[in-house]
Amino acid sequence: MAGRIHNFNPGPAALPVEVLEEAAESLLDFKGSGMSIMEMSHRSAAFEEILNDAVARLKRLLKLTDDFKVIFMQGGASSQFFMVPMNLIPEGSSADYINTGTWSTKAIKEIEILKKRYKVVASSEDRNFRYIPKDFSFTPGAAYVHITSNNTIKGTQWATFPTTDGQPLVADMSSDILSRPFDAKPFGLIYAGAQKNLGPAGVTVVIIREDMLEREPKNLPTMLRYSTHVSKNSLYNTPPCVNIYMVQLCLKWLEETVGGLEAIARINKEKADLIYGLIDSNPFYKGTADPDSRSLMNVTFRLPSEDLEKKFVAQAGGNGMGGLKGHRSVGGCRASLYNAVTLDAVRDLVAFMKDFAQANA
Amino acid sequence: MAGRIHNFNPGPAALPVEVLEEAAESLLDFKGSGMSIMEMSHRSAAFEEILNDAVARLKRLLKLTDDFKVIFMQGGASSQFFMVPMNLIPEGSSADYINTGTWSTKAIKEIEILKKRYKVVASSEDRNFRYIPKDFSFTPGAAYVHITSNNTIKGTQWATFPTTDGQPLVADMSSDILSRPFDAKPFGLIYAGAQKNLGPAGVTVVIIREDMLEREPKNLPTMLRYSTHVSKNSLYNTPPCVNIYMVQLCLKWLEETVGGLEAIARINKEKADLIYGLIDSNPFYKGTADPDSRSLMNVTFRLPSEDLEKKFVAQAGGNGMGGLKGHRSVGGCRASLYNAVTLDAVRDLVAFMKDFAQANA
Repeated sequence: MAGRIHNFNPGPAALPVEVLEEAAESLLDFKGSGMSIMEMSHRSAAFEEILNDAVARLKRLLKLTDDFKVIFMQGGASSQFFMVPMNLIPEGSSADYINTGTWSTKAIKEIEILKKRYKVVASSEDRNFRYIPKDFSFTPGAAYVHITSNNTIKGTQWATFPTTDGQPLVADMSSDILSRPFDAKPFGLIYAGAQKNLGPAGVTVVIIREDMLEREPKNLPTMLRYSTHVSKNSLYNTPPCVNIYMVQLCLKWLEETVGGLEAIARINKEKADLIYGLIDSNPFYKGTADPDSRSLMNVTFRLPSEDLEKKFVAQAGGNGMGGLKGHRSVGGCRASLYNAVTLDAVRDLVAFMKDFAQANA
Repeated sequence: MAGRIHNFNPGPAALPVEVLEEAAESLLDFKGSGMSIMEMSHRSAAFEEILNDAVARLKRLLKLTDDFKVIFMQGGASSQFFMVPMNLIPEGSSADYINTGTWSTKAIKEIEILKKRYKVVASSEDRNFRYIPKDFSFTPGAAYVHITSNNTIKGTQWATFPTTDGQPLVADMSSDILSRPFDAKPFGLIYAGAQKNLGPAGVTVVIIREDMLEREPKNLPTMLRYSTHVSKNSLYNTPPCVNIYMVQLCLKWLEETVGGLEAIARINKEKADLIYGLIDSNPFYKGTADPDSRSLMNVTFRLPSEDLEKKFVAQAGGNGMGGLKGHRSVGGCRASLYNAVTLDAVRDLVAFMKDFAQANA
């Protein structure tokens, strides 16, 4: 659409333009109801249809069996960092964590605050989280094994998920959920803030396997129990309706316009390959993640100097390409290639990168 | 605007049409940024401006002194029910609660779950919460006195707030914040889900007096401490950006278009008086709240029979007036008259009520 930039933001991030157009129409009068989607009761038939459709689409896209429950929560992945250990570690048990970056570290901080038992069974902190650990073993009987599937800041991603000895996996998939197919069977719980691949910020998807609910301790505040939200179909209290609506539109787009997870995975691979291909062939750019640990969602790279990095981000901005600055904690540059970022946008970025290297080498 | 109904929903509720129109424009390209408000980084200058403007407007509208901090949270008032006792009751202390209906009862349930000490110092449960209690005394040294300023379901409202013996008031103002001016000085904390007078569902405003932060116990999860959100200006993690944006637009509308709290209070009084006037003069309708405890936000009333109530709600719907069904827990009818409900909408409703009574008496 005219006037819109190529948006490589790390999150909140690009949304499909078709989704935004449909949402804009519903902002004053949702499907002839005479009210905005933002003015409708969360207990109306129209909203329940949106909610149930979003759940059904997510289950179809991820091929979830019926023992998985999908709920919409608030508070972001940051709230899941404490809710997971609060709910899923039975008395006397402990949990395993794999530390692959900033978000894993934050998750570990919260289990520490709760004084629950845990073990960091692998970490890539020794080389500033440039890689996904390969050698690790799990604690027998651990309540779960927590991983961060994609590391937005460090630019790494689990290419395949670790095989446990039966301990359920728990994953923060905030920045790569729905970017590719995967087998959900080994997972006890998956959580994801919406603001990368699912929709706008303000809603968090939690996928929980039914048997995990049995671990819930007594005396947790009502809102902090997964069972509250599962038993009420995310309607125990007023949910973030407009955010859930946007998620539903994004899921519809992914299913009907893109054609599902196999299709988006091919496109996402092609997008990432274009940039990594340039980085590997042009010494002006230097990827920061180990090649076998590279993220297909967040491509992190450095230029010969910080001054050139600033110039790169500024010139890209002038050329209609935004969001390319690296996270403030690590510097450098980063191109986030979530589902809504088009192949054309990436082609334009790669062309710009080539020109910029030539002009500044 | 053509096609829009008169929306008397109890929440999520009517929003000002001017606000919705401005939001619709920003959904594809926010002020020439080339992206949607939903695609912008929460750490961008543009979003921080929205956030800071919302805080400044709220402080001006409520005439808050600088010792009050305004934060935007997630999880609704339902999460404040447990966060308040979790954060604000020092070791060995207890809290006072006044029970005026469904929401107060839920707040009390959460302090009970936490096993904190508390005392219900007054309740109107004896007459199904039809009134606001008048006779009560407070526990000396109580950590706070919790009230629900307006009872959405029962249709009652505190006309003036109780005078304590120095104990800070804590109020759930979800359904009447910004509907009238009040003196914030006696309050230690005020919380309000946005979905009535502030904006769409998905964000909760918390106003906390600085000295309350000193009570925070050690070892609370990071996201459950008020200090986390105060010290990071609501940006510890990704906030619900589009919801905060909508709140900012609603505050701007209230300040600039309506003219502030004195102006809206006059309009709200006039709206409520129109309906209560009819109820008091026409025996076909019967108000459910004691006259001195009536809510100016939610007018609850009964008709001669449940069949007539169904017919009333259906015919009103056919005449472009929605949301008039009473809460499922109490039945009857309810007209919610939040800030964005216009005087014209209420005049149309009163005219319809007169006609309906005449035709069905």
